[in-house]
Amino acid sequence: MKLEQYLERRCALIDRTLQQLLADHEAPPKNLGKAMHYSLFSGGKRIRPILALASGEAVGARPQRILPFACALEMIHSYSLVHDDLPAMDDDDLRRGKPTNHVVFGEAMAILAGDGLLTEAFRIMAQAALKRGQDRTAALQAIWEVAAGAGMAGMVGGQVADIEAEHQKPTRKRVEYIHTRKTGALLRASVRVGARVGGASAKQYARLDRYGTAVGLAFQVTDDILDIEGGTAKTGKRVGRDAELNKATYPVALGMKKTKRYARELLDEALTALQAFSPKAEPLRQLARFVVERAVPSET
Amino acid sequence: MKLEQYLERRCALIDRTLQQLLADHEAPPKNLGKAMHYSLFSGGKRIRPILALASGEAVGARPQRILPFACALEMIHSYSLVHDDLPAMDDDDLRRGKPTNHVVFGEAMAILAGDGLLTEAFRIMAQAALKRGQDRTAALQAIWEVAAGAGMAGMVGGQVADIEAEHQKPTRKRVEYIHTRKTGALLRASVRVGARVGGASAKQYARLDRYGTAVGLAFQVTDDILDIEGGTAKTGKRVGRDAELNKATYPVALGMKKTKRYARELLDEALTALQAFSPKAEPLRQLARFVVERAVPSET
Repeated sequence: MKLEQYLERRCALIDRTLQQLLADHEAPPKNLGKAMHYSLFSGGKRIRPILALASGEAVGARPQRILPFACALEMIHSYSLVHDDLPAMDDDDLRRGKPTNHVVFGEAMAILAGDGLLTEAFRIMAQAALKRGQDRTAALQAIWEVAAGAGMAGMVGGQVADIEAEHQKPTRKRVEYIHTRKTGALLRASVRVGARVGGASAKQYARLDRYGTAVGLAFQVTDDILDIEGGTAKTGKRVGRDAELNKATYPVALGMKKTKRYARELLDEALTALQAFSPKAEPLRQLARFVVERAVPSET
Repeated sequence: MKLEQYLERRCALIDRTLQQLLADHEAPPKNLGKAMHYSLFSGGKRIRPILALASGEAVGARPQRILPFACALEMIHSYSLVHDDLPAMDDDDLRRGKPTNHVVFGEAMAILAGDGLLTEAFRIMAQAALKRGQDRTAALQAIWEVAAGAGMAGMVGGQVADIEAEHQKPTRKRVEYIHTRKTGALLRASVRVGARVGGASAKQYARLDRYGTAVGLAFQVTDDILDIEGGTAKTGKRVGRDAELNKATYPVALGMKKTKRYARELLDEALTALQAFSPKAEPLRQLARFVVERAVPSET
């Protein structure tokens, strides 16, 4: 399996489905539709939906079943970026190498585009859950996972803790609290959603969840590393932005060497969780490696 | 039936349930929890949840069944007010006679408190839908109705149209487009949610929907009237705020006399839709009268 090709094909499938799902409803006012599309189709890596699809695949589910839920996860990720970039929040003017939503559409529209993406994500999941042949209980569990991962005890809570930490000493405990919520919770939910809608057994679910927890955290640990060592070309963001905003990050709390070791430990943990799975979990394995090795190349 | 007592008892029930539902999950960071509570418990009239409960009652459903969905509607209403008041939006510093969320907690926290309320509303609905004995299909339909009413073709779309209309001539068509979405869609969804979760037949659903459409619009028509004729004591808002912001309103588009006549027509339409219902629809009837007569007292 070639990861690059796999990712490309998955991205194309997700982009196509996102377009369809948004068009498959009464049209919003023109500028709102434009603002929502702008951020949704601005070169995201689609990690969350790909994780959801790969998690379903690991338990033998067809991607088609999981796709609307996967797309909803990407819409929620996209909304969170739009709101995070706002002047009242991180005040970022560049995202994935392009001007941020509020720079292009204004602050009011950016807030509303984010609200719209978040709300439509739930509409799309409910709609998919109502389709004939869908397991309604599994679909409702998936909707719960997404809301819990994105809500006050997940992503939104993590963002609040992140902002508040700007005036506090970045201890390891504090950084871990923020990262498991701000980024980890939705990535973990992505894996869980694939497992739920894919029809995982309780044992499979527990293993996939262990994988999702490790990868979710690894993603943010490596993001912290890339903010220092990556170039704008690699990250689409300005280098050193975290330090500028006095953000609580792993390199600040642990030092760079220990942070890199931690990233590799999390990769080991993710791969161990998948040991009992067949070759069908190969995409999940490669995704975990991809996440970590983009910042901490293999030592071999 | 005494409406005042009925409303008081319903408000108390809703407030109690909201407290429980928010406490029944991992605690958010302290300030986020505070900010969410501040706006959720700041003297709202709970019209949306009360409509949902009354709609369920009209088809013989017990309030308990509908309560979590009703509370979710109030959380979404509350989030929309927090975001509408933001400096980038209507820039309001007073709401229900109290300082607005961003005045108390800052802009970043107000954005996140809104995001949190919106997301938790869906978590709470999914959780209720997963309870033993719940009709999962009806619950999913209700979740869909809420998301559609609150999303890009509903409330969020109406808010965008409202902002854009500040620079356009307020024709009747434009005002109607904005109001059916900005306020009407979520009120209509409230009635639909009660009908869905309450187990309405197709015929009952259609009648209740006709009622909800009329009352949803009547609510905004009378709000426009009160913005001109009501006092701050009555509305909790500064009088004349719409005119100040150059908002598209019915009195501007139609004149005050025709606006009041329209409000009474909508009340007639709402009551006509309920003709086939038993005395169980009495709360819905009285709620419609209450909405209209707070601004356009009965001529008798």
